[in-house]
Amino acid sequence: MNAPDTALHVREQLYRDMHPHHLTPLWEVLHALVPQRPATPCVPALWKYDEVRPFLMRAGEAITAEEAVRRVLILENPALRGQSCITQSLYAGLQLILPGEVAPSHRHTQSALRFIVEGSGAYTAVDGERTTMKPGDFIITPSWTWHDHGSEADGPVVWLDGLDIPMLRFFDAGFAENDTARSQQVTRSEGSSFARYGHNMAPVRHDAPFGATSPIFSYPYERSREALDTLERGAPLDPWEGVKLRYVNPQTGGSPMPTIATFLQKLPAGFRGQGWRQTDGAVYSVVEGTGSVDIECGEQRWSFAFGPRDHFVVPSWHTARLRSDAGCVLFSFSDRPVHAALSIHKEERLS
Amino acid sequence: MNAPDTALHVREQLYRDMHPHHLTPLWEVLHALVPQRPATPCVPALWKYDEVRPFLMRAGEAITAEEAVRRVLILENPALRGQSCITQSLYAGLQLILPGEVAPSHRHTQSALRFIVEGSGAYTAVDGERTTMKPGDFIITPSWTWHDHGSEADGPVVWLDGLDIPMLRFFDAGFAENDTARSQQVTRSEGSSFARYGHNMAPVRHDAPFGATSPIFSYPYERSREALDTLERGAPLDPWEGVKLRYVNPQTGGSPMPTIATFLQKLPAGFRGQGWRQTDGAVYSVVEGTGSVDIECGEQRWSFAFGPRDHFVVPSWHTARLRSDAGCVLFSFSDRPVHAALSIHKEERLS
Amino acid sequence: MNAPDTALHVREQLYRDMHPHHLTPLWEVLHALVPQRPATPCVPALWKYDEVRPFLMRAGEAITAEEAVRRVLILENPALRGQSCITQSLYAGLQLILPGEVAPSHRHTQSALRFIVEGSGAYTAVDGERTTMKPGDFIITPSWTWHDHGSEADGPVVWLDGLDIPMLRFFDAGFAENDTARSQQVTRSEGSSFARYGHNMAPVRHDAPFGATSPIFSYPYERSREALDTLERGAPLDPWEGVKLRYVNPQTGGSPMPTIATFLQKLPAGFRGQGWRQTDGAVYSVVEGTGSVDIECGEQRWSFAFGPRDHFVVPSWHTARLRSDAGCVLFSFSDRPVHAALSIHKEERLS
Amino acid sequence: MNAPDTALHVREQLYRDMHPHHLTPLWEVLHALVPQRPATPCVPALWKYDEVRPFLMRAGEAITAEEAVRRVLILENPALRGQSCITQSLYAGLQLILPGEVAPSHRHTQSALRFIVEGSGAYTAVDGERTTMKPGDFIITPSWTWHDHGSEADGPVVWLDGLDIPMLRFFDAGFAENDTARSQQVTRSEGSSFARYGHNMAPVRHDAPFGATSPIFSYPYERSREALDTLERGAPLDPWEGVKLRYVNPQTGGSPMPTIATFLQKLPAGFRGQGWRQTDGAVYSVVEGTGSVDIECGEQRWSFAFGPRDHFVVPSWHTARLRSDAGCVLFSFSDRPVHAALSIHKEERLS
Repeated sequence: MNAPDTALHVREQLYRDMHPHHLTPLWEVLHALVPQRPATPCVPALWKYDEVRPFLMRAGEAITAEEAVRRVLILENPALRGQSCITQSLYAGLQLILPGEVAPSHRHTQSALRFIVEGSGAYTAVDGERTTMKPGDFIITPSWTWHDHGSEADGPVVWLDGLDIPMLRFFDAGFAENDTARSQQVTRSEGSSFARYGHNMAPVRHDAPFGATSPIFSYPYERSREALDTLERGAPLDPWEGVKLRYVNPQTGGSPMPTIATFLQKLPAGFRGQGWRQTDGAVYSVVEGTGSVDIECGEQRWSFAFGPRDHFVVPSWHTARLRSDAGCVLFSFSDRPVHAALSIHKEERLS
Repeated sequence: MNAPDTALHVREQLYRDMHPHHLTPLWEVLHALVPQRPATPCVPALWKYDEVRPFLMRAGEAITAEEAVRRVLILENPALRGQSCITQSLYAGLQLILPGEVAPSHRHTQSALRFIVEGSGAYTAVDGERTTMKPGDFIITPSWTWHDHGSEADGPVVWLDGLDIPMLRFFDAGFAENDTARSQQVTRSEGSSFARYGHNMAPVRHDAPFGATSPIFSYPYERSREALDTLERGAPLDPWEGVKLRYVNPQTGGSPMPTIATFLQKLPAGFRGQGWRQTDGAVYSVVEGTGSVDIECGEQRWSFAFGPRDHFVVPSWHTARLRSDAGCVLFSFSDRPVHAALSIHKEERLS
Repeated sequence: MNAPDTALHVREQLYRDMHPHHLTPLWEVLHALVPQRPATPCVPALWKYDEVRPFLMRAGEAITAEEAVRRVLILENPALRGQSCITQSLYAGLQLILPGEVAPSHRHTQSALRFIVEGSGAYTAVDGERTTMKPGDFIITPSWTWHDHGSEADGPVVWLDGLDIPMLRFFDAGFAENDTARSQQVTRSEGSSFARYGHNMAPVRHDAPFGATSPIFSYPYERSREALDTLERGAPLDPWEGVKLRYVNPQTGGSPMPTIATFLQKLPAGFRGQGWRQTDGAVYSVVEGTGSVDIECGEQRWSFAFGPRDHFVVPSWHTARLRSDAGCVLFSFSDRPVHAALSIHKEERLS
Repeated sequence: MNAPDTALHVREQLYRDMHPHHLTPLWEVLHALVPQRPATPCVPALWKYDEVRPFLMRAGEAITAEEAVRRVLILENPALRGQSCITQSLYAGLQLILPGEVAPSHRHTQSALRFIVEGSGAYTAVDGERTTMKPGDFIITPSWTWHDHGSEADGPVVWLDGLDIPMLRFFDAGFAENDTARSQQVTRSEGSSFARYGHNMAPVRHDAPFGATSPIFSYPYERSREALDTLERGAPLDPWEGVKLRYVNPQTGGSPMPTIATFLQKLPAGFRGQGWRQTDGAVYSVVEGTGSVDIECGEQRWSFAFGPRDHFVVPSWHTARLRSDAGCVLFSFSDRPVHAALSIHKEERLS
């Protein structure tokens, strides 16, 4: 047996001997552990609403009202099947609630966002205050607050659920509790949270009702849309992202939730976006109009055409280019605030 | 000469000898330097608008359009005449601008607030954006930003000027500059600052255009008033201050200016407030309705009945009680953010 | 086929049909996704140094000087073999460097800590400044700073490597670069970073050389040990953790790195600690003395006796009880700052 | 009477009429209120220790031990006689304590610093912990903490008192209280605060004992001096200030007190500093060596030669140039943190 073989043999023997001691050689894996650039296992994906909706409706039949709280179709990243996540750190799903249904009250440390996709008249109650849902509304369920929901609509209501479930699983910090009451007592009139904190004013006795999460838990679409339109008239177009606003926690100026940032952007008719990439993977929900996104990573290419209520994901460090002939409005969310808190956020804008 | 005399003599001789060396004995003044509780030289005062207005109009005649920028009647604290201040740290004045007048553009490190008291149709331009004034609007001139104003109204317009002039004089940090242009170029459409930052959203490329000062430099009364009304319906009444909101810098959740906090409050009809005192002296401008304030400090008592457009000041550590039979709305400002930054703010609420 | 069967059949058919569309039913997995309390896959584990050391020495023979940078035995959590992590978010390994070896310069976004376990005379150079290693020293390699190391010792030097590798892999934010130069230029004298920031003073022109990471990248054991001893004399004993100090970033008062907190604690002779649990799993390195830790989670129990240079891990939400007859000093690190930044940290102290 | 006279007359009549209503015309004072640049009333001044010391000793005879707490000679700015301040916002005085004297315990919201000028063996007790004074030590009396002092020295001990007395007077926020006990109970061993927070470590159960003020209330000269020397060797010389360090609150990285920043700097032998000016006026205490400072403001010039224990003040926006043939060490303090908190700090460095 010649020298190289011996060296090889020596190493393999070492591996075998130390394996039972829970020891592993770094030199065999270093390259994978410390990559030159992010090599996410996630892949881009598109969920066409007209393909997803029939399954939602079938779920409406298959899942009883009693189980309504769970009637969600998880948008699973094609490369991460079985892990219930759309990026490594984020969960996304489409939830259906039918007329008359009521989902019991519970709470958990996971932060949740709801973005209303279809239908009006359902409601969610957070910490004793109800909010009626309308398409395009962005609603927060702050960490560890009691919440339930139900529907007084006359048709199906569908919303996008975005949660930090994989993140809390990764950090082993998930807690949950079911309420003894089926649905919680309503203690405040609808809109009172917004009244307190939504008008660039705040109660003098400052209380941060939801800790690091925005005291406004409902951002109505009509207001956000108005902001977008006025900004479009008043400001130069961003060559990469069109007209883009981030939702703000008015108590801090930061993101609405400590783990998730949310955005609303408008691509004017004829927009031809330049490419950019960032370390935070983002999930998009198409609110209005049509457009397309070209995504590339190394040698790989993806191209998605999207319309209203479609959803798609752009993974970390994938270059995306947005286009729209007719113009469109996009809602999106990502884990950017965590990247910022950890000082690991990186972004690259190509021209 | 007996012993006490000698001791006295020794001291006086010492004082005389060291005086030329810029030395002074602490033991003669310690008590005054470190009081048991705040002993402000300021006194409470009330300025009835029907008394002040005639002087403003006479100033309108006495002061030419060329001098319009200076056509302000300073509300001087009666105990601090000649010092151009309403409390030791704050300046307040009432400014009149007449139809067609234009005040030239300038900037200074002093932060300024304008609270519109009478008339519509005047405008102020800040950093290239114009804002049209309406009664009750709260407008900011951020530190070191170019600003000018003028009037296209058909009648007189009067607003309250609130500045930190005495503070910057005390800290020797005042700088000012006159623009070469008579009035600045308008570069952004009216309302674009509000569009960017006023809807609990913010541009993705975050820029803090005015540093520590709110990027919203105009808080329209109609929105603030709406917030107040909704809060009144949705929240319990504060026994001391009725329904009170503070204006917020949406980028920080803090005060609109680093040196000045501003507030809007409503006393519902029949309100009988309990007494409170705080270290920050406050200046009030009555927006709507009528009421009264009882103020006490030690043995002294003051009682003011107020109506629309009246102004009054409550000095530091004076106990105030607000009352209103018909209900009223009050705007107020103080240097509370400085007290907070210096960790010297103290408040006491009596019951 | 009876009703239940039908229902079951309907669901399974639905699953089959939507699977190709990257859709998964939440109702089948909800319980696992939102657990009542953290259910970490990690398990407690102990690495006895006298068992690990022989493998390190064999690695010293198997791995050439050229590969020295990689001569690390990863301490792999027994329940997470093949994932190169000791908790889900943290990496730990023991690195050996032999006399005369030099590891080439590189940098990466992963933050690294070195805690010196055995031997003196090796050095690490960070951003142009060298630090000589002594047992007990805590040394930081800030994110994205050039670093290399070598040894001028006459015997083997071993240190504990602690990194946030799994965290950056999870967030897809890892970047790395190799230096063109074999080892970097030394531009500052040893100890100059400590001189600048280590004495509760800082240069007037404040610069945060390493961003969110501590400008002190070497915390000598002699100083930390002295702090521990003085504190032991001056302060009451903590019934749970004995005498425990956290290392501080003097520019912020926070943790030395944005992703990792580090601690040094002393258990006095005869210490019988009470149990506590927290969401952040912690890795321990025994510096001096002997002791034991009893760990429990649900029905499971672990009990480890430890001595100098042993290492052990306490996973999230496992109750730990520390004991020591002879007294001991423990170094430890965890991802607590991330739990804090995400507002998900929870701790429970039993009595 | 011609037109101008009339105009003049009209204005004067207006002034007379409105004066009783506490109204003053801005247009007569605007220029003074909003200056082009800071126009401080303070002037530079020097206090030679050999001139001041005899007065201190005479005060030692004139002021009984019972009054010892007040035995301070205030360094009054020559342009602000009778106001007990050295700049508009800061107070400075030299305090003498004689062997065996004890000053009773009290507390106040004013923050105080002591910088030991002459003698060893006196002590101050803060919040139950005693600190023995040595020349060059910088000691803090945090706002609203009980403190007393006394002397077990065999000779006189003199220190510089620096307080924010004028600032709290200006903001009407001064509170004070005398202890019922003559001197407070000693509850912690000397040095335990430093042990807890002085070594770039902190107790795990973080408590901020003094709020916004540094938990280290004594910064020993030997450590600060060592930092200065090491920095001098390790870093390039600053052409304006030589080698200069600021004292740090290790819990925040900011200034030791919210109202006062403190500095220690070394001018190496042969140093010829360039000129700089800043909005915060600074008070200097010469610790070692000799040097000179040239100060200018507009047309005015001052030149001071200084030696050990001399004190001098450089007012706001005065250009200062420091020089030293033999080399020297200077301690200084200013209200810079307030300028920073109010976003009004400005600095200009000439070359």
